[in-house]
Amino acid sequence: MAVHTVASVTNPVDLGPAAALSCRECGHRVPLGPVFACEECFGPLEIAYDFSGYDTEELRKRIEAGPANIWRYAPLLPVPADVADKPNLNPGWTKLVKADHLARELGVTGGLYVKDDSGNPTHSFKDRVVAQALEAARAFGFTTLSCSSTGNLAGAVGAAAARAGLRSCVFIPHDLEQGKVVMAAIYGGDLVGIEGTYDDVNRFCSELIGDPAGEGWGFVNVNLRPYYAEGSKTLAYEIAEQLGWWLPDQIVVPVASGSQLTKIDKGLQELIRLGLVEDRPYRIFGAQAEGCSPVSVAFKGGHDVVRPQKPDTIAKSLAIGNPADGPYVLDIARRTGGAVEDVTDAQIVDAIKLLARTEGIFAETAGGVTVGVTRKLIENGVLDPTKTTVVLNTGDGLKTLDAVAGTGLTATIRPNLDSFKEAGLV
Amino acid sequence: MAVHTVASVTNPVDLGPAAALSCRECGHRVPLGPVFACEECFGPLEIAYDFSGYDTEELRKRIEAGPANIWRYAPLLPVPADVADKPNLNPGWTKLVKADHLARELGVTGGLYVKDDSGNPTHSFKDRVVAQALEAARAFGFTTLSCSSTGNLAGAVGAAAARAGLRSCVFIPHDLEQGKVVMAAIYGGDLVGIEGTYDDVNRFCSELIGDPAGEGWGFVNVNLRPYYAEGSKTLAYEIAEQLGWWLPDQIVVPVASGSQLTKIDKGLQELIRLGLVEDRPYRIFGAQAEGCSPVSVAFKGGHDVVRPQKPDTIAKSLAIGNPADGPYVLDIARRTGGAVEDVTDAQIVDAIKLLARTEGIFAETAGGVTVGVTRKLIENGVLDPTKTTVVLNTGDGLKTLDAVAGTGLTATIRPNLDSFKEAGLV
Repeated sequence: MAVHTVASVTNPVDLGPAAALSCRECGHRVPLGPVFACEECFGPLEIAYDFSGYDTEELRKRIEAGPANIWRYAPLLPVPADVADKPNLNPGWTKLVKADHLARELGVTGGLYVKDDSGNPTHSFKDRVVAQALEAARAFGFTTLSCSSTGNLAGAVGAAAARAGLRSCVFIPHDLEQGKVVMAAIYGGDLVGIEGTYDDVNRFCSELIGDPAGEGWGFVNVNLRPYYAEGSKTLAYEIAEQLGWWLPDQIVVPVASGSQLTKIDKGLQELIRLGLVEDRPYRIFGAQAEGCSPVSVAFKGGHDVVRPQKPDTIAKSLAIGNPADGPYVLDIARRTGGAVEDVTDAQIVDAIKLLARTEGIFAETAGGVTVGVTRKLIENGVLDPTKTTVVLNTGDGLKTLDAVAGTGLTATIRPNLDSFKEAGLV
Repeated sequence: MAVHTVASVTNPVDLGPAAALSCRECGHRVPLGPVFACEECFGPLEIAYDFSGYDTEELRKRIEAGPANIWRYAPLLPVPADVADKPNLNPGWTKLVKADHLARELGVTGGLYVKDDSGNPTHSFKDRVVAQALEAARAFGFTTLSCSSTGNLAGAVGAAAARAGLRSCVFIPHDLEQGKVVMAAIYGGDLVGIEGTYDDVNRFCSELIGDPAGEGWGFVNVNLRPYYAEGSKTLAYEIAEQLGWWLPDQIVVPVASGSQLTKIDKGLQELIRLGLVEDRPYRIFGAQAEGCSPVSVAFKGGHDVVRPQKPDTIAKSLAIGNPADGPYVLDIARRTGGAVEDVTDAQIVDAIKLLARTEGIFAETAGGVTVGVTRKLIENGVLDPTKTTVVLNTGDGLKTLDAVAGTGLTATIRPNLDSFKEAGLV
């Protein structure tokens, strides 16, 4: 079965079924390489695959017999066939938790699941995308893995590079919280604080890529971005396989740059075209924080253009004010009958506590955003509670403890029974 | 094949192959119940199993076809056969990481592996033991899950109870760090601070168990301790299965109460008796922090008696000054040709950084203890670097950030290339 058949190009590297880079805007194709923008129209490049020669049932068996990590899907990713033999963090195959208590609280009767990506090696979904970028870095002969980051990504890159035996050099704003600095620095790579905002850090990285000083450097979210982004497809693959090769009716996905949501859609489409799942309708919902809601505002206003915002929210891992993939998110939400919605910081905190109290899952603020938006969409009659729904938690509450710092002791007592009984807990 | 054949007792509950409670000292047997000390000699009670009727190859197939969590070993645990269908956190089946870079640094040529239990739902091995206690609590009709704790256990109990729909009430010293309080409180159960030391907290819990106010309460590490402790066997099962049903030559295990080490030995012995692995010699090594090294001191002094210490170490999850299973740890280390050793706080921090830098694994202080002790044992010629060695990491570095708070930025620069080049990183 041929999917995404591409014109033959000569690739200097072996990245499995990845056949070329293709511009999402104009379709122009170039060989695989460390480039991210179309030379014709400056549109974003993404991976085009050659899946010809795959037999559906053989592929399914191969996946099911594969390792309990993302490499079970190696035939569908831009990685060499022997990827699992090389040292990397082997992320993925995280739990899809049937959330019956949460469903009861939210009034969902059609089956509610939480895809809990806090189970990844550095406890966020970033391990999935960095693992793809690492293979691309190896293929292109890069010796330093780099990125700009405000948190999760820094740790994921530092850990992956350490495991792979590559150097890492990560750039962050110089005034990050000490905890985040420790999490990024512990892996022993270079960690450079830049006097400026996150935008300044990004601008600096683009400069460095063009300079001889940046030679041999793979920036996972810049010049390796087309490879990196594909890692999010594995969330779609896992959800479908864990549901017994079945597409859920509704999926709620956090939106930062919007890349994750678009790649989840891409992954689901591939499963359909490969015959691994039945072609049935699904709806994709995007979730943002009110304090950084450019895509949600555009969706609700019926606009095609995403107007940048200056972020101000506790959901810092989603705080991208000018999301590159915003227009694609709007397309997908509208095409699939989904929506994009946002919640306030207070609603985010409530949702973190709700998920912890009902299912024992301690989510990062981004998980509070998706659970909070799910609740809001149900209350507003947008999300159908009688349908099977999957909500993503993309990170770990241990990384955003400040957001729930008010949570504390129920009672303080003296060490005796009388004092305990006075506290009124029995 | 009959293993641990027991006299017939009438059990009021179904906990799978668990046949009775048996005193580790005098062998006296009683039916399964929420008791932990022998009525004859006050020795510790542990689970005796009826494994009769198991065919080795059928059992192996059943395990291999089981879920990717501890319940694949349900036939060997004190849990009902349908355990996987009930809401719990499904811990276990964590990664066994082949640590080639670390091996090179330590001079290990026989194969070095890190069993990384930071991948558990609340990021410590405690999820394994709490999951067993939860099943016992359900079997005995308890409605509140409780414990005394200084950290990891509080979170594991709170999360497991939330997921199971039970109430939780956890007791901690009232002056714990705010971060640990948040991690324990987030799951919405009652969290009671006790004005006193951890010893005071423990004493209070023992009092509460004997009082009508404690009726219906299962204290995972007190009246449910015989069930709880069995969870550590799953570490042994997983290590052997992940090595291809093969016993490693050497295992390095942290020692707090000593329970984990003794149960790992019990698990390995069961695998041998059940025919699931070849009977070959293995050596078990215990690892402590110098600031709480009662078992290590006894081992090195050639004593049978463990003299209590007042703990003073950054490895707080191992800081049990009077370890209940200390004498059993000494027995096992001596019987298997192992040893018990300790490292300083500075060596613990160095080892945390070494593991992070070489393998991308950010370990809790307890992981620094095992890696540090491994290094010391190799340097001292005690641990054989030409043999296959497994080192346990039982927790997550995110929970003990304070221990490595000195880790920070390599450089701070202005957002331009000149400033970067001046920093000397290229």
